Amino acid sequence: MSVSEILDGKLTGKEVEIKGWLVNKRSSGGVQFLIIRDGTGLIQATIHKNEVAPEIFEEAKKLTQESSLTIRGSVVEDKRAPGGYEVRISELKIVHLAPGDYPLAKKEHGIDFLLNHRQLWIRSPRQMAILRIRAEVVKACRDFLDDRGFVLTDAPIFTPSAVEGTTTLFEVPYFGDKAYLTQSGQLYVEATIATFGKTYCFGPTFRAEKSKTPRHLTEFWMVEPEMAFCGFEENLKLQEEMVTYIVKTVLDKRCRELEVLKRDIKPLRKVELPFERISYTEAVEMLQKAGFQIEWGEDLGAPHERYISLQFEKPVFVHRYPAKAKAFYMQPDPENPNVVLCADLMAPEGYGEIIGGSQRIHDLKLLEQRIKEFGLPKEAYEWYLDLRRYGSVPHSGFGLGIERTVMWICKLKHIRETIPFPRTITRVYP
Amino acid sequence: MSVSEILDGKLTGKEVEIKGWLVNKRSSGGVQFLIIRDGTGLIQATIHKNEVAPEIFEEAKKLTQESSLTIRGSVVEDKRAPGGYEVRISELKIVHLAPGDYPLAKKEHGIDFLLNHRQLWIRSPRQMAILRIRAEVVKACRDFLDDRGFVLTDAPIFTPSAVEGTTTLFEVPYFGDKAYLTQSGQLYVEATIATFGKTYCFGPTFRAEKSKTPRHLTEFWMVEPEMAFCGFEENLKLQEEMVTYIVKTVLDKRCRELEVLKRDIKPLRKVELPFERISYTEAVEMLQKAGFQIEWGEDLGAPHERYISLQFEKPVFVHRYPAKAKAFYMQPDPENPNVVLCADLMAPEGYGEIIGGSQRIHDLKLLEQRIKEFGLPKEAYEWYLDLRRYGSVPHSGFGLGIERTVMWICKLKHIRETIPFPRTITRVYP
Repeated sequence: MSVSEILDGKLTGKEVEIKGWLVNKRSSGGVQFLIIRDGTGLIQATIHKNEVAPEIFEEAKKLTQESSLTIRGSVVEDKRAPGGYEVRISELKIVHLAPGDYPLAKKEHGIDFLLNHRQLWIRSPRQMAILRIRAEVVKACRDFLDDRGFVLTDAPIFTPSAVEGTTTLFEVPYFGDKAYLTQSGQLYVEATIATFGKTYCFGPTFRAEKSKTPRHLTEFWMVEPEMAFCGFEENLKLQEEMVTYIVKTVLDKRCRELEVLKRDIKPLRKVELPFERISYTEAVEMLQKAGFQIEWGEDLGAPHERYISLQFEKPVFVHRYPAKAKAFYMQPDPENPNVVLCADLMAPEGYGEIIGGSQRIHDLKLLEQRIKEFGLPKEAYEWYLDLRRYGSVPHSGFGLGIERTVMWICKLKHIRETIPFPRTITRVYP
Repeated sequence: MSVSEILDGKLTGKEVEIKGWLVNKRSSGGVQFLIIRDGTGLIQATIHKNEVAPEIFEEAKKLTQESSLTIRGSVVEDKRAPGGYEVRISELKIVHLAPGDYPLAKKEHGIDFLLNHRQLWIRSPRQMAILRIRAEVVKACRDFLDDRGFVLTDAPIFTPSAVEGTTTLFEVPYFGDKAYLTQSGQLYVEATIATFGKTYCFGPTFRAEKSKTPRHLTEFWMVEPEMAFCGFEENLKLQEEMVTYIVKTVLDKRCRELEVLKRDIKPLRKVELPFERISYTEAVEMLQKAGFQIEWGEDLGAPHERYISLQFEKPVFVHRYPAKAKAFYMQPDPENPNVVLCADLMAPEGYGEIIGGSQRIHDLKLLEQRIKEFGLPKEAYEWYLDLRRYGSVPHSGFGLGIERTVMWICKLKHIRETIPFPRTITRVYP
C-alpha cells in the first residue's frame, strides 16, 4: 500500500499501513496533522486525541522532521487535505526518532549548503519531483527506442582517443598507460549498426570543460541512437518523434510532479510534430538583425541558442552548419559542400541545444581526407575507418542530453538539480 | 520490413525489400545463394539466372563478404533454407562493394586478432547473438524493477571515496584535485530510498584489479536496487524473482539466439523459485570435505564458488559470511554477531557469483564503530552517516553484474564477449 495509490483514489474507505518519513506537522486543538512521505508521494495523516489511545497521541507529539515511522489508519476523502485525501491514524510507531536539528529545516539555504547536503536535499518535494521526472524521461527514451527495434549496445567509458578534440578530456592513468573517459559513444554505435541495423548507447559521458555555466556538468548522461541506411531527413523525423514522445509521456504520467514544480504546461502542450526548422545561415541572419556580433562560419554559442530558441514556440532544428565549425565525421551537403548535413535541436523557452545529430560520412576517401584536414591521428581511427572499408552504408544518428532535456521540461534555472549527485568543476562530494 | 519478420512467418508470399550485408554466398548451377544480415537476423536469398535480368545476375557475382546491398524479392517458405524461409530475388543493388580481403574471412583467429578487430568481430552470428541477449537482460532488469515501483536514480561515476578499499580504484586528476571512478553506486542509492522508498542505479562501474581472469573486466555494468523498510529475507526474495524473470525473458524472447550459441537450455529451464540456500559455514564444511584448504573466516575465491555452484542445479545463495570478510556496512546477524546478513548468489554450472547483497546497518552508533574498526576515514562518510541520523530505517539491497549474468546465460568461457567493447588491464582499443 502506497501513498500514490491513496492519491489515485484507489484506497478510499480502506484500512492502510504506510511506512515513511515525517515531512512536517502541526497541531490544532485535539488534532495533530502529520505530512508523511513514503517514497511515492506526500499524504496528510491526522491523529485525533479522542480516537486513539493516549500513549499513541503522546508518542506522536515527540515526532521530529524526518523521523521515520509506521502508521495504520483509514483513508478518507477530504478536500481540505493537500492532494484531497487523508489517513485517520489508529496506530503509530516511531521507527527512528531524528534529533530536532534537521539541517534543512529552514526554508532558505545557500546553494553550497544545499549541495553539501545533497543526500538530504533530495528528500524535498521539489527535488523529488525533478528526479521522478528524470526517471520518466530516461524510461521514455528507452521505451521509444526499444519499441522501434533499436538494440542497446553499450559504448565503452574508457577510450583510447577523442571524438571532439582533446582539451576537454579526462585522462586516467591506466596500468602504466593512459585512457580517456568517453565524451560520446557515437563512433562505437556507428560500429554496432552493422550488427543490428538500429542501435543506441545510453550512459554517462564526461567533459573536462572549465566553463562554469548553468548548463554544464562534468558528468552527464546521453542517449545516442544510430541508424544504418538512414539519411538526414529520416534522422530529423526520429528526433521529432522521440522528443514529442518524451514530453507527452511526462505530461501524461508526471502531472503531479509538474504541479509541485509550478511548471506552466501550456508551452509543453505545444510540442507537436512537425518541429520548426531553420538553416544555420538563416539563424546567423536572424542573429545579426537582432544585433548579435556573429559572422557566418562561427559556431553558435549559448546566448545565440537562447535567442533563437525564444523566437519559436516549438523546438527548432538549426541545420546545415559550416563544415569547419563541426566534427570531422559529418556528411557534406551535396548541394553545398561548405555546410554539413547536421542539425542541433533547440528546446523552446530559451533552453537551447538538447540534441546534436548528423548524417555521417560513409565514403572512405572523404573520411580519410577529413581526418587529415582536422589534424587527427589516423592510426587512432583505423578501426573506425574499417566501418567504411567493409560494407559502408549511409547512416545517421544523434545524441540527446538527458540533463538538458530534464532542465527544460522542468523549467529549471540550473542543470545541477537534474541529476541525483551533480558533478561540476568544483564538486565531487557527496 | 525486416529479416526477423520473415523468420517469424509474417511476410510469406509477400514482396519485400531488405537492406543489409552479405554474410556469405555460394553458387550452384544457375542459382546464387546469398546469406544476408540486416541487423534483425540472417536470411537466405536466392537469385536464379532464368528469373532476373542478366546484368543483375552478373552484379550479384561481384558480391564480396560484408558488401552492403539492397534486394527486392518475394518470400517463400523453404525447409532447406536456414531458418525455413528464403527470399527469391527480383532486384539487387550493391550499396558498397567491400574489397575481397575481409579480415575475419577465415573461420579461426587468435583472440588478440579478434579483439583488435572487435568493430568487425561483433558482426559474426555468435557475437550478434550474445550482444542481443545482453540487451534483453538489461531490458529485463529495468522492466522488472520499473514494474515494481522502483525509481531509477543514477549514481555518480566520479566519487570522493571508495566503497570497498582503495587499492582497486581508478584515480582521475580532477581540476587540480583528484576523484575516483565508482566501484558501486550502493551508498548513493541508500540515500535516494528516503526520497523514493525503492530505487536502483544502473551504470558502469570500475575496478582497477590487476587480476587477469576470465571473469574480470576493468569496466562492467551493474544494476543495484535498494529498498527502505526491507529486511534480509525480503531482499533474497526479490533477487530470486528478478533472476528468474531475467532467465525466463531470455528463454521466451531470445531462443533463436540461444540456438545460435548452441546453448543447452535444460539447465536454464530449471531456474525456478525458490533458489537453494546454504550458509557460509555450511559452504566451508562442504569445501573442506571436498579437499579444499579453507578455514572459517576466509572469503570464498573463484575456485570455491565454482565448486559450490556445481553442486546445485539452481542458483544458490551463500549467506551469512563472517563480518570481517565483508564490507563495513553490513548488518550483523542478531543470532550470531560474528556473521552478517549478506548473501552472494552463485549461478549454476560452475559460474559462481552474479549477485552480492546484504541488509545494511541502520544504527548510527554501530555504523560509526564499523567505520573505525575498518580503518576508514570518517569525514569521507559524514554524508552517508547523515542517512542514519535523520530517519534511519532498516534497508537492504544488492548488486547484479550484467556481464557475469550474460556469461552464465550464454554459457561462455570468457566474460570479454559479453560487452560490445571489452576493457581489460591490457586493452582500451578499439
